[in-house]
Amino acid sequence: MKKIYLIGIGTGNPEHLTIQAINALKMVNVFFILEKESEKNEDLVKLRKEILQRYLPNEKYRVVVAKIPERKKGGRELEVYKERVSSWRRQKAEIISNLINNKMVDEETGAILIWGDPSLYDGHIEIMNYILKRDMAKFQYDVIPGITSMQVLTAKHKIPLNYIAESIQITTGRRLKESQPDDVKNVVVLLDNYLTYRDFSDTDLNIYWGAYLGTEKEILVSGRLNEVINEIIKTRNEAKKKYGWIMETYILRSEDNEDPRKS
Amino acid sequence: MKKIYLIGIGTGNPEHLTIQAINALKMVNVFFILEKESEKNEDLVKLRKEILQRYLPNEKYRVVVAKIPERKKGGRELEVYKERVSSWRRQKAEIISNLINNKMVDEETGAILIWGDPSLYDGHIEIMNYILKRDMAKFQYDVIPGITSMQVLTAKHKIPLNYIAESIQITTGRRLKESQPDDVKNVVVLLDNYLTYRDFSDTDLNIYWGAYLGTEKEILVSGRLNEVINEIIKTRNEAKKKYGWIMETYILRSEDNEDPRKS
Ligand SMILES: C[S@@+](CC[C@H](N)C(=O)[O-])C[C@H]1O[C@@H](n2cnc3c(N)ncnc32)[C@H](O)[C@@H]1O
Ligand SMILES: C[S@@+](CC[C@H](N)C(=O)[O-])C[C@H]1O[C@@H](n2cnc3c(N)ncnc32)[C@H](O)[C@@H]1O
Repeated sequence: MKKIYLIGIGTGNPEHLTIQAINALKMVNVFFILEKESEKNEDLVKLRKEILQRYLPNEKYRVVVAKIPERKKGGRELEVYKERVSSWRRQKAEIISNLINNKMVDEETGAILIWGDPSLYDGHIEIMNYILKRDMAKFQYDVIPGITSMQVLTAKHKIPLNYIAESIQITTGRRLKESQPDDVKNVVVLLDNYLTYRDFSDTDLNIYWGAYLGTEKEILVSGRLNEVINEIIKTRNEAKKKYGWIMETYILRSEDNEDPRKS
Repeated sequence: MKKIYLIGIGTGNPEHLTIQAINALKMVNVFFILEKESEKNEDLVKLRKEILQRYLPNEKYRVVVAKIPERKKGGRELEVYKERVSSWRRQKAEIISNLINNKMVDEETGAILIWGDPSLYDGHIEIMNYILKRDMAKFQYDVIPGITSMQVLTAKHKIPLNYIAESIQITTGRRLKESQPDDVKNVVVLLDNYLTYRDFSDTDLNIYWGAYLGTEKEILVSGRLNEVINEIIKTRNEAKKKYGWIMETYILRSEDNEDPRKS
């Protein structure tokens, strides 16, 4: 039987790897690197190389780089967006199953390195299940958890995800856009390229914002949203211009400073 | 200046530690272990010892064990519960600030090992902020992320936390109890000692349930809630009886098998 690992590698700091992830790396015969045709995020490519060099200094592995098509952009409407993402994933399933069928032999172990944690807004688990369900390739696979951008955000800001007995919502910029300000109590937002927090600037929400979390480029801003929003917009626009890409995550939270839970 | 690390250690598997966490361990002069007066969860105590022995074989560190009072039980009502937890945390702040003041000297590094990730339903970040705000002790502190029970749950069930563009709610058994079945689309539940999923057994939700995640005792059950609920209740009651304690986490998710995102 062939074996595949989906290995969570954290969000930019090679020290985010767990011992479990490193032990999995050591079992791997072939790493599949799926690169978008125009990969702007050089740090992503660099981090993967750095991880392999650092944790597998003996180079007893193969690397197969496969180009994946660019996902069709746009799709502000949810249904259009979903259909575009899922058709993109079907293409990736074709590519990955071909790699498994043609680039590894029986009893070998392959791996895909996943940014952050494989379960958080990442399609690879669904792609693996899709391939197996349709018998597009034969293999057994395991998922190795990794540190998420969300956890680096809270660690760096030194805040909990949830106060006592509180809930938290993890959502996307798109979904946040549909929310009423009164419904936003405690929300982590990923996948927001639209500066959706601007829609909430006349509330008394606090924001904990972070970009390039875990990397050397890391930037953090926090405070009352209406007081720091201009700083965030200016900072992110400058950084995006400078580096050519940005990844940002933030928490919007309604926090009464008189809250007994805080004192 | 004194320095404190809050180090996330994952949920029972010593291989959940990140390289960042191991590097932090190596800086530590004194580990503070806060033990409940009646600690039933022996694995918790054992894991901490195992981590220190495995990653710091040279034993160049001190360990200070401090007893912490038991939290008053009960408080099914949210407000009573919150007040009990926050008064318990104030007691812990007293104890921890005394440890920092009396059990370490200037320029030393101390650490507290935190189950899972320090930001997920854990009070230590808030306690540190509380101590600093009130000048109860002088120190600088850092938070090191760790793998959460939630991530081990999804990794082992091989499911994503969120399908394309979907949100997820992280909540407690108490909060889930207040929810209407129609509002439950995709929820991770922690801190549920009340088998609250029973309240949803006549919905068509799916459940992904896990206990003792990451440990050798790990148990997983998943399926249509109304089909597997008896198995879960039986399994958890037997396990709790056998081991004297249980930690369980689950996801309730409304999943239409015809859903185009799944195919
Ligand atoms: C496709 S999702 C993948 C998330 C990833 N699996 C994780 O666990 O963090 C990409 C989104 O994650 C967030 N993200 C990932 N890495 C980040 C980083 N280093 N800094 C800030 N945000 C990040 C951003 O919101 C980005 O739009
Ligand atoms: C006080 S919270 C701490 C959560 C922890 N900080 C984390 O990151 O997972 C304790 C709750 O976490 C969940 N939990 C922690 N460890 C677990 C494990 N090994 N298996 C299942 N659930 C676990 C249970 O729901 C438990 O009630």
